[in-house]
Amino acid sequence: MDAEIIAIGSELLTPYRQDTNSLYLTERLNHVGVEVRFKDVVGDRREDLVSIAKNAIARADIVIFMGGLGPTEDDLTRECVAHALGVELHRDAEIVAWLRARFASRHMSMPDNNLRQADVIDGALVLPNAKGTAPGQWIEKRIGASQKILMLLPGPPWELKAMFEEQCVPRLRTSVPPQVIATRLLKIALMPESQCDALVAPIYKRHTEVETTILAARGEIQLHLRSRAATQDEAEARVQVLADELLAELGDFVFTVGNDTLEKVVGNLLQQRGATIAVAESCTGGLLSQRITMVSGSSAYFLGGAVVYSNGLKTVLAGVPAELIASHGAVSREVAAALAQGIRDRCGAKIGIGITGIAGPSGATPEKPVGLVFHSIADARGTDVLERTFPGDRERVRLWASQQALDMLRRRLMHS
Amino acid sequence: MDAEIIAIGSELLTPYRQDTNSLYLTERLNHVGVEVRFKDVVGDRREDLVSIAKNAIARADIVIFMGGLGPTEDDLTRECVAHALGVELHRDAEIVAWLRARFASRHMSMPDNNLRQADVIDGALVLPNAKGTAPGQWIEKRIGASQKILMLLPGPPWELKAMFEEQCVPRLRTSVPPQVIATRLLKIALMPESQCDALVAPIYKRHTEVETTILAARGEIQLHLRSRAATQDEAEARVQVLADELLAELGDFVFTVGNDTLEKVVGNLLQQRGATIAVAESCTGGLLSQRITMVSGSSAYFLGGAVVYSNGLKTVLAGVPAELIASHGAVSREVAAALAQGIRDRCGAKIGIGITGIAGPSGATPEKPVGLVFHSIADARGTDVLERTFPGDRERVRLWASQQALDMLRRRLMHS
Repeated sequence: MDAEIIAIGSELLTPYRQDTNSLYLTERLNHVGVEVRFKDVVGDRREDLVSIAKNAIARADIVIFMGGLGPTEDDLTRECVAHALGVELHRDAEIVAWLRARFASRHMSMPDNNLRQADVIDGALVLPNAKGTAPGQWIEKRIGASQKILMLLPGPPWELKAMFEEQCVPRLRTSVPPQVIATRLLKIALMPESQCDALVAPIYKRHTEVETTILAARGEIQLHLRSRAATQDEAEARVQVLADELLAELGDFVFTVGNDTLEKVVGNLLQQRGATIAVAESCTGGLLSQRITMVSGSSAYFLGGAVVYSNGLKTVLAGVPAELIASHGAVSREVAAALAQGIRDRCGAKIGIGITGIAGPSGATPEKPVGLVFHSIADARGTDVLERTFPGDRERVRLWASQQALDMLRRRLMHS
Repeated sequence: MDAEIIAIGSELLTPYRQDTNSLYLTERLNHVGVEVRFKDVVGDRREDLVSIAKNAIARADIVIFMGGLGPTEDDLTRECVAHALGVELHRDAEIVAWLRARFASRHMSMPDNNLRQADVIDGALVLPNAKGTAPGQWIEKRIGASQKILMLLPGPPWELKAMFEEQCVPRLRTSVPPQVIATRLLKIALMPESQCDALVAPIYKRHTEVETTILAARGEIQLHLRSRAATQDEAEARVQVLADELLAELGDFVFTVGNDTLEKVVGNLLQQRGATIAVAESCTGGLLSQRITMVSGSSAYFLGGAVVYSNGLKTVLAGVPAELIASHGAVSREVAAALAQGIRDRCGAKIGIGITGIAGPSGATPEKPVGLVFHSIADARGTDVLERTFPGDRERVRLWASQQALDMLRRRLMHS
């Protein structure tokens, strides 16, 4: 079965607010075997809400409306869904009594507007709201050849989550054919998306029983595998077979099967090897250190480092000879190697990392374009330098440079 | 005129990813006088994308499609929009040549898949992509009685923003009836949202002709003011009067009236004062340096710094006496001051900043809880230390500590 999730409220159409309830709902729906096929956001305008509701009811098995259940004139969800279904609303005496009691217990008089919250769509089941005044509604209705489920839920996240978890999930389990879902996530660093797709598409296309999604962002590609089957064993076996084939093709380009970040994977390898690191970074300006120390427990292997933005500090903090900078330039293979060696010595670390490059937008020369970065690793075995030219703006160059340094370190650790 | 924004990609229907481009687009559309009326998310499924496209073209004046312009089989936006419009695609020779040249310049061979990116909807104008391989498309078409504008934009935010800003906004301005909107943005660091609201609500509620939105995130509160009027002068006057009243109430808690980041504001002050800084950070692990160097041109005032995670490095890189650490502990007022003084001396900077604290989740003692951070600034006038205990997890503590150090520096520079 598939679902459409509709968030209602004009504030969700401003630059400042965003629906996030749908992420929670998607996770819970997937878990009971329901896929989300559409998400929409619509304002508090009658004709728009009716039009969205009609489309959704026509195309999805399950339609979830969020918000617009309050007491004000702007709260139109009840009447618009009734209109889209072609049925009437009736005022529910029990809800009226409950609302009056709630106000009375707070020694407040109830504005007449609040009676709107007692309007129930004919045929709907009322979902009491443990956290607020807006009750939800659950509707099961045969439309044409298919049985539809509609839910009207309140917008505030704590009200919605409590209601969905306690009242909707159990009902969904009885309505949705029991299904199990198995997932796998493979992460790959620094490969162009088209290159990755060319490698993996011939493989995952043979596995039509597994749904594969490729996601590329921030110097990383994620391959999300997902399969549904009648039993957990069968679903697990399907994603495992595909994951194994993808791993055989991609080899050590895959830095994890799971949800770990690259910095976490590198941290685990450092701990397994009993290694310590220190970092001397120029163009990344602290980003590499910051990523390494995002990982809780990183003090076990990260000693620290230097952000050597000025040439003077490359010498003072990382011991790079001033003559070397003068003869090769600060952005050079030689200075990258000297940064890695120098910070390793200075900090007494097993491994030193050096980064120097041109993040832009200024600082480029004809020989040294924006995006040119030298990455270096020094350890007891020697010093390696990797030269890359990254496209994109300052933020992207810095991110990719930090990504490249981490991945270079990962490979070095894997083969040591 | 009104707009519908459609985000395309199955990953946006998972619990893991969310469209955020629409927030940026909404801000820019509002600015030229266009309101957003619907937002939708749809996966990479042909029939769904065609259905959404048809609905949107029928009901909105402007339809923006984001994503699905890549080279893979999943990238269906071009063909589905063509189908919804009832027109054909043609392969554009210029784009093919451009794609081939782009790959050749990187010494890579182009997979055949990439040719799909040269498919153009009949009647569309090609929008070159300065930041990636997927060109956008701009379509103006009379449908029934109304003139519609359609845009196909790439999904990655940096590509979308560059293309929309440079190529779409100017075109929109010629098509949309001129309207005037005046806006002001006030940013406040480190104040609790409820405290801010208690101060400002009595003021902005008197100004019903200005729409005020309060937003709190990442150690910062934003007050967005917006007013429309018949003339620019009138709209500007309305927001200016309210902004002035808010500034009078909030004083130097407001770090900018505009869209600058706190690190940019601090950078401007450093440049105006002709000052240089160096940083020695422990619990923030490079985050402060990284934020300062996010600002293009920061090399004019940022010399560099040390990430002194281990106690040994606090001595080696920032010259903190080992006895001081032994007697007061690494997380102490004394060590924070010594970090600021030491890194200032070592780097020859006018201002030194030191941060030491417990980001958690481990490392706390009964006297020193998770979230305890000491921030210090040293300059020719002396050394100040500020102690704070931040609530929240590791990421939040680190962020707030970097925020506090920047705001402390801002106040010091303003009063120097």
